[in-house]
Amino acid sequence: MEYHDSEKAKAVAGRVEDFMDDVVLPREREALATGEPITQAELEDLWEQAKARDLFAPQVPEEYGGQGLDFSDMLPSFEQVGRSLIGAHAIRANAPQEGNMHTLEMVGTEDQKEEWLRPLVQGEISSAFAMTEPKQGGGSDPKMLQSTAVKDGDEWVVNAHKWWTTDGLEADFYLVMARTDLDAHPYEGTSIILVPADADGVEVVRNIPHLGGHDITEREGGHAEMKFDNVRVPVENTIGEEGQGFQVAQMRLGGGRLTHCMRYSGMAERSLNIAKAYLSEREAFGTTLDEKQALRHRIADAETQLHAARTMVRHAARELDRSDARIEVAMSKVFTANVTNEAIDLALQCCGGNGIGKDLPIAHFYEDVRAFRIVDGADEVHRRSIARWAFDDIADEEIEHALQFDEDLRIDALDE
Amino acid sequence: MEYHDSEKAKAVAGRVEDFMDDVVLPREREALATGEPITQAELEDLWEQAKARDLFAPQVPEEYGGQGLDFSDMLPSFEQVGRSLIGAHAIRANAPQEGNMHTLEMVGTEDQKEEWLRPLVQGEISSAFAMTEPKQGGGSDPKMLQSTAVKDGDEWVVNAHKWWTTDGLEADFYLVMARTDLDAHPYEGTSIILVPADADGVEVVRNIPHLGGHDITEREGGHAEMKFDNVRVPVENTIGEEGQGFQVAQMRLGGGRLTHCMRYSGMAERSLNIAKAYLSEREAFGTTLDEKQALRHRIADAETQLHAARTMVRHAARELDRSDARIEVAMSKVFTANVTNEAIDLALQCCGGNGIGKDLPIAHFYEDVRAFRIVDGADEVHRRSIARWAFDDIADEEIEHALQFDEDLRIDALDE
Amino acid sequence: MEYHDSEKAKAVAGRVEDFMDDVVLPREREALATGEPITQAELEDLWEQAKARDLFAPQVPEEYGGQGLDFSDMLPSFEQVGRSLIGAHAIRANAPQEGNMHTLEMVGTEDQKEEWLRPLVQGEISSAFAMTEPKQGGGSDPKMLQSTAVKDGDEWVVNAHKWWTTDGLEADFYLVMARTDLDAHPYEGTSIILVPADADGVEVVRNIPHLGGHDITEREGGHAEMKFDNVRVPVENTIGEEGQGFQVAQMRLGGGRLTHCMRYSGMAERSLNIAKAYLSEREAFGTTLDEKQALRHRIADAETQLHAARTMVRHAARELDRSDARIEVAMSKVFTANVTNEAIDLALQCCGGNGIGKDLPIAHFYEDVRAFRIVDGADEVHRRSIARWAFDDIADEEIEHALQFDEDLRIDALDE
Amino acid sequence: MEYHDSEKAKAVAGRVEDFMDDVVLPREREALATGEPITQAELEDLWEQAKARDLFAPQVPEEYGGQGLDFSDMLPSFEQVGRSLIGAHAIRANAPQEGNMHTLEMVGTEDQKEEWLRPLVQGEISSAFAMTEPKQGGGSDPKMLQSTAVKDGDEWVVNAHKWWTTDGLEADFYLVMARTDLDAHPYEGTSIILVPADADGVEVVRNIPHLGGHDITEREGGHAEMKFDNVRVPVENTIGEEGQGFQVAQMRLGGGRLTHCMRYSGMAERSLNIAKAYLSEREAFGTTLDEKQALRHRIADAETQLHAARTMVRHAARELDRSDARIEVAMSKVFTANVTNEAIDLALQCCGGNGIGKDLPIAHFYEDVRAFRIVDGADEVHRRSIARWAFDDIADEEIEHALQFDEDLRIDALDE
Repeated sequence: MEYHDSEKAKAVAGRVEDFMDDVVLPREREALATGEPITQAELEDLWEQAKARDLFAPQVPEEYGGQGLDFSDMLPSFEQVGRSLIGAHAIRANAPQEGNMHTLEMVGTEDQKEEWLRPLVQGEISSAFAMTEPKQGGGSDPKMLQSTAVKDGDEWVVNAHKWWTTDGLEADFYLVMARTDLDAHPYEGTSIILVPADADGVEVVRNIPHLGGHDITEREGGHAEMKFDNVRVPVENTIGEEGQGFQVAQMRLGGGRLTHCMRYSGMAERSLNIAKAYLSEREAFGTTLDEKQALRHRIADAETQLHAARTMVRHAARELDRSDARIEVAMSKVFTANVTNEAIDLALQCCGGNGIGKDLPIAHFYEDVRAFRIVDGADEVHRRSIARWAFDDIADEEIEHALQFDEDLRIDALDE
Repeated sequence: MEYHDSEKAKAVAGRVEDFMDDVVLPREREALATGEPITQAELEDLWEQAKARDLFAPQVPEEYGGQGLDFSDMLPSFEQVGRSLIGAHAIRANAPQEGNMHTLEMVGTEDQKEEWLRPLVQGEISSAFAMTEPKQGGGSDPKMLQSTAVKDGDEWVVNAHKWWTTDGLEADFYLVMARTDLDAHPYEGTSIILVPADADGVEVVRNIPHLGGHDITEREGGHAEMKFDNVRVPVENTIGEEGQGFQVAQMRLGGGRLTHCMRYSGMAERSLNIAKAYLSEREAFGTTLDEKQALRHRIADAETQLHAARTMVRHAARELDRSDARIEVAMSKVFTANVTNEAIDLALQCCGGNGIGKDLPIAHFYEDVRAFRIVDGADEVHRRSIARWAFDDIADEEIEHALQFDEDLRIDALDE
Repeated sequence: MEYHDSEKAKAVAGRVEDFMDDVVLPREREALATGEPITQAELEDLWEQAKARDLFAPQVPEEYGGQGLDFSDMLPSFEQVGRSLIGAHAIRANAPQEGNMHTLEMVGTEDQKEEWLRPLVQGEISSAFAMTEPKQGGGSDPKMLQSTAVKDGDEWVVNAHKWWTTDGLEADFYLVMARTDLDAHPYEGTSIILVPADADGVEVVRNIPHLGGHDITEREGGHAEMKFDNVRVPVENTIGEEGQGFQVAQMRLGGGRLTHCMRYSGMAERSLNIAKAYLSEREAFGTTLDEKQALRHRIADAETQLHAARTMVRHAARELDRSDARIEVAMSKVFTANVTNEAIDLALQCCGGNGIGKDLPIAHFYEDVRAFRIVDGADEVHRRSIARWAFDDIADEEIEHALQFDEDLRIDALDE
Repeated sequence: MEYHDSEKAKAVAGRVEDFMDDVVLPREREALATGEPITQAELEDLWEQAKARDLFAPQVPEEYGGQGLDFSDMLPSFEQVGRSLIGAHAIRANAPQEGNMHTLEMVGTEDQKEEWLRPLVQGEISSAFAMTEPKQGGGSDPKMLQSTAVKDGDEWVVNAHKWWTTDGLEADFYLVMARTDLDAHPYEGTSIILVPADADGVEVVRNIPHLGGHDITEREGGHAEMKFDNVRVPVENTIGEEGQGFQVAQMRLGGGRLTHCMRYSGMAERSLNIAKAYLSEREAFGTTLDEKQALRHRIADAETQLHAARTMVRHAARELDRSDARIEVAMSKVFTANVTNEAIDLALQCCGGNGIGKDLPIAHFYEDVRAFRIVDGADEVHRRSIARWAFDDIADEEIEHALQFDEDLRIDALDE
């Protein structure tokens, strides 16, 4: 399928595709077959190969070691890496590292970029974004944010209880969302503070047990419950402007949702490819199971929906390169999350018992993709935003016309 | 499929099935093929045959000319008649006549039964239930009912503007819902008044143009917009107790929803049978269109869902014979409305161009079934009732357990 | 939503949008409210206004009276006209006229263009494409085509029995698909012959009764069953090269599928707009029906899917302007047909009884859109094409990997 | 919801419900909260309590220590135990042990019952059913079965390579399906041989990594890959008649599918209950998130579908107590597998991040339920059986009627 991406985008994506086919996928298949996880040293070797092939960190500016691509242009490369459980890792484009790099690059000072962004891109250090809190009171109301950072001289004193901090178990630093002005509206009084993992008072409480994430590398990953107890860091560790934490987080999230869409669409593509290989292989033995035809048609639908997602996400990336593209990103996210989920579910079904087994990557993908309908805004949150937009501008003529005949199948009333 | 219906139910249903296969379906096919509608005389002849076969009006007590079956026992007969566009008519079990008979039989006085029920059962006269009103203000709130009946001596003076009055164009009498005590809560101050069509002030405004209902009999049917302008009828024309109109209507509706389910499930069965005949015929020519296998699997799903609906509806009928079975009926109605709609949609698709054409009954069924998700309580109304019931009784332990870990993927907050 | 269409496309579409809002939609609403159909004279007046506004026949080259837009550029205009039951008619972009114009323009001779295309564009005459045949033997195998055209001197002698010939009742000429070389494979031996309606032997057998199509103009439209009995026309009436009928038809169809997608997406948009107007109106009365929130979320999904369809169709149009875009068009067609069908179904549901009523256009749209999943290749036909493409190129590595663990939940075997 | 179960069934189920609420669910919640698995000693203690409460092993005849209930009567008890991750274990009604007990009880000799069934019921020993084989050649054709048992004197010499042998890691004996007469059709030449785990040549190759099954008890469970290398057992270890292995397996499976439906429907019920608790809790804080209403309606649908499944499964159980009920069981299985899967998916979504987390049981259920659409006959296998049944008996009249108008939207042909 030709997607009319730019020449630059295609060139990098072509190199990424070769890297995936030649190096990454064979290594992944071996890890699955043997059950031996991929070591940190091997991962670093993959990074070296990615650099040698001019495809390392496509989303990062060239001066910091990446390929300098904007959202539209990184897109086909990110789709490629989604095809493997270790693809995004292999080119250093995995969440949440990728989003954290984007944040530092967008709003970090030159000093911060030198100290944190540069080694982060190189994989010398790792990071985590500490935003979500337990027991917030039962709402997604930002006013409920409990974490605080209080200025004491030239230091922030951070107190926070966070959880679902992705990659938090092994991070070298945390970007912590905290209230820095309790009198202001949270949208004006929240800041992001960079906290090194070795600061006094930083504690990993536990790895929250959860669906998925049992990745095949040595790295533990996971989602951490964290405590920050009177942690002191210099005020220069503010990331972006003081008080503008929500605005920075929102910028981070818009792009993050879209890069997630790209990677997950690669995941769905791979799953369908395995399913097709499996079904066609079984055909080769001469059996004529009619359910295969039924499955073929369902695969046609999955391919169609995946294609729809890819055209939507491209459209949104184009918009995001020039605006905040709120609705375009929300639509892309909710649509892609659902169709990739369904495609992977179908692929699993096509493989029967092998679909459930973890000798193939599909069961891993199945676990991972389920979170995508929840993280970065659950489906319901995006649907609400989209509905608001959709109901925002209704032509008076239509209302008048509808009114003219307003009625109610009154019979309903009895069910009140 | 053996449904464990009672021996009595099976005996009548067996006779109905033969009647359908021998008489009704052939006549319907002929009407479709020729485009010539079935005359009133022919319809009356069908009634005579139904009587001769001991299967006329299964839902009506024997003393009024029917078979005297309760909901559980009329069920398989009603499923049978649903198979034809004229099936329910042919045995005098068609809505809304059937529900109106049920109402008169439940709460009518002996005089009312002799005067109205007996000839209604025989088809000598026709009836309509006038409940829904236009421009009610935008809610299904019963307090919005505008129609009134005011006592003047021994007469009611009825003023009402109604619409969607099914069969209202040709009715001989109307059961009109009207406020009879404006000071009381509508649930206590509304009555049902029987209004003869030839009373002064009764006006059929128009046949509301609508989807479906182009039936193949001479009778016009349709949904009427009606005006009742200072219509005077004797106070003895109150149907059921004064002030208890909503209660009576509710009793009428519970059963009506379930008999609708029965008939529509027959409609879906017939549609699937035609689709299977069509597909298998095309197979006979030796082609091997793989989409047929895909369609076969989808038909298997439709058959499965239809079977589910039938077991649910049987369960609800059993309950309704001894309680109001609110939730059981609501679940049966919303489920059956949707699965019959989908089954008929699938059957239409299986027949390609012939599915759209009206030489076959499927396109007629397709139009008719769409209303079923709206009338007698739209899906949304029933879902609300079911949700209320479902959320009514939540174990404290589960709340406590859920609370313990209450959190929110806080990241959602940014979308507020 | 900004779709990055070309400046030229936006300019015409902007004019079309104004024309729709100022002239066409008000006239349609009036016709629905009064039940009075729009006369031919009024339709011609709309054409004059469309010409005066420089938006008449966007798909036709300027030299023949249109706006000279390619598929990508006509797209937003076609979406606009889909919003009204008479929109495409009003700018002379309605099927099948539009596709017949496209055919004549693509392969017609200069003489044919002068004689038939020019007046056809202007609406002085009307046309039909006579392809489908009854009783073809039960397959969609082109070898089953029964119609023939035999050369006798400088004339074709056409014998054909056709049906589902859209607009056939009132056409001034027919493009008839017929075998012209019985010894050749149909793909090499079929031609398209232009047959004037007034030629001897042309007979309209009947208007096939069918779902939908009860349009609100005086014109009857409809799908005709036709007989061509020894009809003689000059050999110069061959449209395109002799023997290349299937190739020409295929070219006509690729574009036709896509322009259908554009118009139907406008139809879905309008339906959703009415539904939103209806729901928000009901909100205005202060009721808080919780089902409305549920419907809002479902509308958000419908808007999202419609957006997905629009990005896909744009992608396909771009491809179609430079290739045959088989798979892109097939995917767009099957996806758009289904999501517009669902969106219109949802909109109908949102309006309750008014949704079924024909005072609003939704019930009309509901009837019309159902055919879209069948005509121009049923869903199943497109799914088969897509499946073939999808299974065409499976990486050996995936097969090997899948094979390695090939098994079968043997327990299934028992169900054989 | 009142399901009209027998008095006996209700009495046992009532006791099971109390046991679940008082003992089992609190213990499960504690295990989840602490992450400490339940020990074998604790499990045995639960068994003692179950015995004391007269609800141990409802499916087992009283003489072997159970409650002696048939399928219809064990049903509500099995639904109850499904509510907890350890519920079926706690009353010794967990798969595959329950099915193996059923097999021994149906066809075992008195000696076999004394030696193996009695201690199996008591939990003194454990069992596994070794049927599925790797690399069977790509079909679910029973003729592909590779395992053999050859008679040598009064011993069977068993050679088999099996996998997906549930509970195989810790079983004390295996019921091994093997060809015992290679000349006969497999349906006549396959037998089930009981192989003690401590026989020479029995090897557990590995625990196949797979989705789900990380249960919260000390027991490992899991699906084993197994080798049986020249294992010798006495010929008396034949379970059921020699050569009738498939017939016995089929009997085991029919019931097994239905008891799975019962347990999984309890799992779905529990998941929905947690979701409702979670949503209502969040409501309690005074927020009015409109997405909750949307979720409420979706929960209403899930409850409705679950209710449909329960009426279907009851119907099938009633049939299974007197026939093989092939189609009824197939329909129940495919329907229940899908609606429980969807209900659990929805419940997970309702709980947001906590849904993914394993502090609640939903994520465990989510993993477990996915297998249910594959094991005991994948959806596609059942759909094929149902389709065969559905297409088996088509009325000639319908074919004739369909034929009369046979056509094909010929336009499809172009896509061949």
